[in-house]
Amino acid sequence: MNRTVIRGGLVITAADELHADVLVERGRVAALAAHGTDAAAGWSAEHEIDATGTYVIPGGVDVHTHMEMPFGGTQASDTFETGTRAAAWGGTTTIVDFAIQSKGGSLREGLDAWHAKADGRCAVDYAFHMIMSDVNAASLKEMDALVAEGVTSFKLFTAYPGVFLSDDGQILRAMQQAASNGGLVMTHAENGLAIDVLAEQALARGERDPRHHGEVRKALLEAEATHRVIKLAQVAGAPVYVVHVSAEEAVAELARARDQGLPVFGETCPQYLFLSTDNLAEPDFEGAKYVCSTPLRPREHQAALWRGLRTDDLQVVSTDHCPFCFKGQKELGRDDFSKIPNGMPGVENRMDLLHQAVVDGHITRRRWIEIACAAPARMFGLYPKKGTIAPGADADIVLYDPDAEQTLSAGTHHMNVDYSPYEGRRITGRVRTVLSRGVPVIDGGRYTGRAGQGMYVPRGTSQYIG
Amino acid sequence: MNRTVIRGGLVITAADELHADVLVERGRVAALAAHGTDAAAGWSAEHEIDATGTYVIPGGVDVHTHMEMPFGGTQASDTFETGTRAAAWGGTTTIVDFAIQSKGGSLREGLDAWHAKADGRCAVDYAFHMIMSDVNAASLKEMDALVAEGVTSFKLFTAYPGVFLSDDGQILRAMQQAASNGGLVMTHAENGLAIDVLAEQALARGERDPRHHGEVRKALLEAEATHRVIKLAQVAGAPVYVVHVSAEEAVAELARARDQGLPVFGETCPQYLFLSTDNLAEPDFEGAKYVCSTPLRPREHQAALWRGLRTDDLQVVSTDHCPFCFKGQKELGRDDFSKIPNGMPGVENRMDLLHQAVVDGHITRRRWIEIACAAPARMFGLYPKKGTIAPGADADIVLYDPDAEQTLSAGTHHMNVDYSPYEGRRITGRVRTVLSRGVPVIDGGRYTGRAGQGMYVPRGTSQYIG
Amino acid sequence: MNRTVIRGGLVITAADELHADVLVERGRVAALAAHGTDAAAGWSAEHEIDATGTYVIPGGVDVHTHMEMPFGGTQASDTFETGTRAAAWGGTTTIVDFAIQSKGGSLREGLDAWHAKADGRCAVDYAFHMIMSDVNAASLKEMDALVAEGVTSFKLFTAYPGVFLSDDGQILRAMQQAASNGGLVMTHAENGLAIDVLAEQALARGERDPRHHGEVRKALLEAEATHRVIKLAQVAGAPVYVVHVSAEEAVAELARARDQGLPVFGETCPQYLFLSTDNLAEPDFEGAKYVCSTPLRPREHQAALWRGLRTDDLQVVSTDHCPFCFKGQKELGRDDFSKIPNGMPGVENRMDLLHQAVVDGHITRRRWIEIACAAPARMFGLYPKKGTIAPGADADIVLYDPDAEQTLSAGTHHMNVDYSPYEGRRITGRVRTVLSRGVPVIDGGRYTGRAGQGMYVPRGTSQYIG
Amino acid sequence: MNRTVIRGGLVITAADELHADVLVERGRVAALAAHGTDAAAGWSAEHEIDATGTYVIPGGVDVHTHMEMPFGGTQASDTFETGTRAAAWGGTTTIVDFAIQSKGGSLREGLDAWHAKADGRCAVDYAFHMIMSDVNAASLKEMDALVAEGVTSFKLFTAYPGVFLSDDGQILRAMQQAASNGGLVMTHAENGLAIDVLAEQALARGERDPRHHGEVRKALLEAEATHRVIKLAQVAGAPVYVVHVSAEEAVAELARARDQGLPVFGETCPQYLFLSTDNLAEPDFEGAKYVCSTPLRPREHQAALWRGLRTDDLQVVSTDHCPFCFKGQKELGRDDFSKIPNGMPGVENRMDLLHQAVVDGHITRRRWIEIACAAPARMFGLYPKKGTIAPGADADIVLYDPDAEQTLSAGTHHMNVDYSPYEGRRITGRVRTVLSRGVPVIDGGRYTGRAGQGMYVPRGTSQYIG
Repeated sequence: MNRTVIRGGLVITAADELHADVLVERGRVAALAAHGTDAAAGWSAEHEIDATGTYVIPGGVDVHTHMEMPFGGTQASDTFETGTRAAAWGGTTTIVDFAIQSKGGSLREGLDAWHAKADGRCAVDYAFHMIMSDVNAASLKEMDALVAEGVTSFKLFTAYPGVFLSDDGQILRAMQQAASNGGLVMTHAENGLAIDVLAEQALARGERDPRHHGEVRKALLEAEATHRVIKLAQVAGAPVYVVHVSAEEAVAELARARDQGLPVFGETCPQYLFLSTDNLAEPDFEGAKYVCSTPLRPREHQAALWRGLRTDDLQVVSTDHCPFCFKGQKELGRDDFSKIPNGMPGVENRMDLLHQAVVDGHITRRRWIEIACAAPARMFGLYPKKGTIAPGADADIVLYDPDAEQTLSAGTHHMNVDYSPYEGRRITGRVRTVLSRGVPVIDGGRYTGRAGQGMYVPRGTSQYIG
Repeated sequence: MNRTVIRGGLVITAADELHADVLVERGRVAALAAHGTDAAAGWSAEHEIDATGTYVIPGGVDVHTHMEMPFGGTQASDTFETGTRAAAWGGTTTIVDFAIQSKGGSLREGLDAWHAKADGRCAVDYAFHMIMSDVNAASLKEMDALVAEGVTSFKLFTAYPGVFLSDDGQILRAMQQAASNGGLVMTHAENGLAIDVLAEQALARGERDPRHHGEVRKALLEAEATHRVIKLAQVAGAPVYVVHVSAEEAVAELARARDQGLPVFGETCPQYLFLSTDNLAEPDFEGAKYVCSTPLRPREHQAALWRGLRTDDLQVVSTDHCPFCFKGQKELGRDDFSKIPNGMPGVENRMDLLHQAVVDGHITRRRWIEIACAAPARMFGLYPKKGTIAPGADADIVLYDPDAEQTLSAGTHHMNVDYSPYEGRRITGRVRTVLSRGVPVIDGGRYTGRAGQGMYVPRGTSQYIG
Repeated sequence: MNRTVIRGGLVITAADELHADVLVERGRVAALAAHGTDAAAGWSAEHEIDATGTYVIPGGVDVHTHMEMPFGGTQASDTFETGTRAAAWGGTTTIVDFAIQSKGGSLREGLDAWHAKADGRCAVDYAFHMIMSDVNAASLKEMDALVAEGVTSFKLFTAYPGVFLSDDGQILRAMQQAASNGGLVMTHAENGLAIDVLAEQALARGERDPRHHGEVRKALLEAEATHRVIKLAQVAGAPVYVVHVSAEEAVAELARARDQGLPVFGETCPQYLFLSTDNLAEPDFEGAKYVCSTPLRPREHQAALWRGLRTDDLQVVSTDHCPFCFKGQKELGRDDFSKIPNGMPGVENRMDLLHQAVVDGHITRRRWIEIACAAPARMFGLYPKKGTIAPGADADIVLYDPDAEQTLSAGTHHMNVDYSPYEGRRITGRVRTVLSRGVPVIDGGRYTGRAGQGMYVPRGTSQYIG
Repeated sequence: MNRTVIRGGLVITAADELHADVLVERGRVAALAAHGTDAAAGWSAEHEIDATGTYVIPGGVDVHTHMEMPFGGTQASDTFETGTRAAAWGGTTTIVDFAIQSKGGSLREGLDAWHAKADGRCAVDYAFHMIMSDVNAASLKEMDALVAEGVTSFKLFTAYPGVFLSDDGQILRAMQQAASNGGLVMTHAENGLAIDVLAEQALARGERDPRHHGEVRKALLEAEATHRVIKLAQVAGAPVYVVHVSAEEAVAELARARDQGLPVFGETCPQYLFLSTDNLAEPDFEGAKYVCSTPLRPREHQAALWRGLRTDDLQVVSTDHCPFCFKGQKELGRDDFSKIPNGMPGVENRMDLLHQAVVDGHITRRRWIEIACAAPARMFGLYPKKGTIAPGADADIVLYDPDAEQTLSAGTHHMNVDYSPYEGRRITGRVRTVLSRGVPVIDGGRYTGRAGQGMYVPRGTSQYIG
């Protein structure tokens, strides 16, 4: 499989829509040539793919997944094997997962543990961010080594006191370290100390249903923490990337900072764009399926998120894929919303849902590719190896049929979870073929890849930074 | 001394400038009558004061003092006796001082201790706020009782970790309690955890001079904490009053919140209006005289503070009077700025400095009285007993000569501290006579009052709140 | 009628709520004394009024009326006689009406004409603003003389092309002149040129009903013109007062300017606070009763107006009283909304409607008096003669029963117009007695005044400026 | 010259930096292939260009030029022949010039006149915008035809009363027409009526020097008009593009609108980024060289413009190239700044000055290409034919030596004007070779093109619009 040529499609990248053929040599994009040119006509290849009528797009880059993540005595139901296979089904060819430092442990130990989980099991390429649960002199120092070896981003939390929360001094120190070593601090921005007070008070009042999860995690407390981490980053002279932004008020804080020219970035996720507190309020504990943090917001927030994606106040859409089965896992919180494992599946649905947004007129085709492929790759030092179709890039290529119709359902999806938050939703558009470094992993409605086809990808530093 | 009439002056209140005579009966203002009316002519009184050529203004209300406050092994150098006497000299007839709850102690114990310090010693009337150092179920409950007995405001800190700092959950709980009992939470808004990191780093780099105190306590970290307490108040459904606002960016946060109609209030102090980091940078450790927190800011911030006072985004000017002598007290930090006792004198100078601001065109005469007398009295439940000249009000009245000139100096001031931050400054305007509940305490250039003339004044709840 | 004493009421001013008796000598307030003091007890007076259970408030000051105003071949249906009598019934004791310069005429001619209409006819005191329809070298020069004689405010229009509209160069010149002579420019801020395009297009589409009046006069075009006059004022170094603000977006422009400390002021009117486009859309041409410019807005704008009144981004509530009878006048536009005379009655209802706002919790009692009496008086150089109850002020005093109930109706009102925009609305609160310079004009449910009792009042320059 | 291959360079587009060879067939980019791939190696071509050590960038797109423009009795000194030749020297391969409708004339007549001037004379490709001096029913209707034939943008002025100024109703109508036909309204946004008042007053005070040109055209009046055209566009449901933005306050208006998601766009020019009122104040009438409108601003505005370019609140840098010789032309205003022809040369310097901005750290390399090539092409419907290097694009390609040094000077530039506003300025970076549709027009330090090589390019509608 040395040479493959993809003919007749419309190549869509973040920058361009090109009527071009694509030549793949040894797993990488060697050349693009306009349809019908002598140059294109001159190519011979062992494999020829007819892309007529389809979009030829870069494979998706999902920079926020939690495969096999331990949470409250259970763990996320997708392994790196099942999760990356589902990703491939959905047109995503790179994930960046979160390795976790334990309290009292080193970054290295956490990273080694996650390498062990993923090694040899993945269907598509993967990389790691590092969650810092214990910021201290030793772990701050370790950050430099991790950046040097390709783990260039570090997530800190203003939420989950006693578990992940770092105090503002710790966050400032980590940001200062990142400012000096080129790393990027990511933050989960909610005021966890205030939320815990409200949660305790809600439970004391007998408010135990999933919808109370949304009510105690107030939008104002997301906005507050978002503003706070921006100010800390400004003091540190560092950039900051805010994960899973869901509240209109938080988007406003990002916009305000960006208007001042600060290197402040934000991601949102499909669940905040397509779902709402209406779902959290579904009866018979069904709302538990939608429990994640930041929580789903009232429907009115969606317009602000779409606008943020259009104005580039939000740059990335990832999934925060962290599935727990309804039976046996979500049910742990049947009598107490605070015990429901936080997380939702999504790695397989992101590219399709965002194409639906194109169909619905929320974003353009190029912006679709930008927020789902190019921007996440740039943000986390993977571009242009990942995230685009250009000479020299990895041949992670998706043929996408924009006219096909499908219905999302747990009955047909490939994620290892017993429900779909999008059950029954009709989507226009569907993945036809997926190449990972030139090798077909989805083709003709079948998974043609294998565990271990996906490789670990060390990352450079963020390309959004100076 | 049952009846006193003050004739011929220009009565200035926050609302009006009136050519009126003032009749005092039994320590209270009984009536005002226009000059030359039959009504005025008909008054007879044991005492007649000729106010021709002077302003007749309400006595000043200084809602932020720290007499005898323990700090880092020493204590503020003014006792309630010396401090209130100096207040009287400067035309201030009411102070609200801060009683302090100890870690592990009750509010009641703290309040009792402060009553013991003040009782029988004060030259003018006084009241108390309560500093909460330990927010817990018991102290939250105590708040209700204190509000009921006239201690209706509670100060919490986002600064000074390990000493006064409350975490965001504690602040939220205190605000919720205040929302239910009518109390008002005051906050010292700086991100103390981040500041402590920067201070430690500065000292490690050998930056030990007083000016580094200003550099590590960054304006952005004041703005951050200001925004944070506003959001916590919004979640609690409570008002919030931010003390000693010094940074332009913090004023902007207050303005933003007030534009939304939130019950958010701010005070600044003369030192932020008249002094700057230039003073903190004075050589030979002289900068230590100006060490207080929030710190003095670069000169450019002053314009924003004056504008905030004009636009009512700042409502109150208090002093944060907390003097420490240069010799023996400020010197404790000669080799380490972080050991310099935080605080400056000012209770005697406030009315004069703000009159100078009238002369300089920063504010109008009525606004002078509003920010120095009426607004602080309203804010803390003392109005119209204090803060105005109106039928029924306490006869706390100052005759102020707007044309007299004076030079501020430690050589002539009456505060018990060995330096003046305003040494050598020329001021136009000077107190001539001061009545406290009808009794002259300053007259003819002499102190005619006595320790114990000042009474404790229980307060109502804030009159700025719904 | 040399001395009158009002005993036992609650005196409410913009600044204070006082349990005080009020002594009137020769038409002016001579003195206030606290209930029960020797001072109060000592008063004797020919007339004693028992105010127990009532508010004793300053007479209302309505700074925006158009009595007998010519408009499109007809004229406003209230004369100075009927209109000021209705004002008295409603507790308003001063109006400021608009004299109009004709195109090609002088300011003086316009002013003389209006003096002739009002002289000897008014029930309460009155003053004049000047509408400038023709800004040129001569009329600019005349402004100085008018300011000197007590006509200190000048209204210019960005609306009504061909009638009242001044271009931006003319507005700038008038503002420059005002900056030099202490005058205050008032603006009707709507982009009239754009509105006329939209109106023409609407009519061409057959949209002829009253509700289209509201649709073509878009909120964005009010916001645009508001921003424009603010910038022109900033260039001129002049203050500006925007009349009849109705759109949320316009309030936002005022707030933005005021946050910068600019001397920018805004008034709104009861119709914008209590009515909406729902009324404009009433069937059978009933919507014509509500046609005025700026137009009524969708109900959602009301919250922004109330908030603006609370945050002092709006300072004044006037009526823009300009009544046209439904029969014979409003009907002129039955087939063409653009021919409906613009204007509504209201001078009699303002004080009551704003008291209702106190009852409803929108504003406090003191703010009621501030926006209806004190602030308009200050804004237009009438304070403290008008707008307050204080020694030396004119004895324009209203005894207001806060508990009485009434129903607004054309059947019972005293304005010379055949409908009430508030027909059937229940109000809590009612005027009991009205004194104009000490003389009862409303008392015991009867009008006890006479035409000519009201005097012309020359005004000083705005007390909000420098 | 059927096939050309460019080998070894770094291809820089708005989206990517690629180590790729570029194959040109018949005047268009046929293919890109990564260096060293079999695909690249397999190419044979008549012409091979060694790009080692250079950037291979798209030819510049300058969307704001005024060749041979009549102004105040004289005309811009560059013809289409000299001007486009100078453009080529400076690496710009497409200009969009402004055809002008005369007062009373049709759009068609204006367009024909400009075609006649340009036809057969240009060294590089060109297109036209249309200036509307007379908006009326006929010219509005003509807009549709022009859009259909490739003149898709229409410039209107809020400045120059009596010459170009359209009133707000006319601007609204033009915007409505554009909203329906896909055209884009461009605006010169300054309040010309107010400026003319200030200019007349300045001249009357004897202020006649060039620097007064800058003083009377106030930044606030640019901000005002910018806000106004944005609101008119919002009412029309149309996009708007603001030309030559120079004031910080105007950028703020654009940013505010864009935060709301409005289709509002802005361009600035090198003169506002690199020059200031310091230049306008040069003695001996030298300041006249820098007279253009909007005017140069105080140096402090530059930071806001650079920030706007980084935050994408400004999208395009054009030149507003409109040269007048100092001798004989600028001198017309020696005694009266208002008579100085407005305009400056620049078409040759733009690409170099913006590369200097890369060197200076203001923008990245990709952003350089975006603001100078890709974004202007997209904005005006020329992309991807112009503005990028991609399969199918016109082979308008520049080899740019990033390390060469040059000094800007009238002595060496190719524009037909007797001075350089950048005289003596050192620049790092220089054009080496320029291809226009595959044909070398600059090569080896010589102009190798010819008049008539440049073709007229009809444009599509803006690609920034829905």
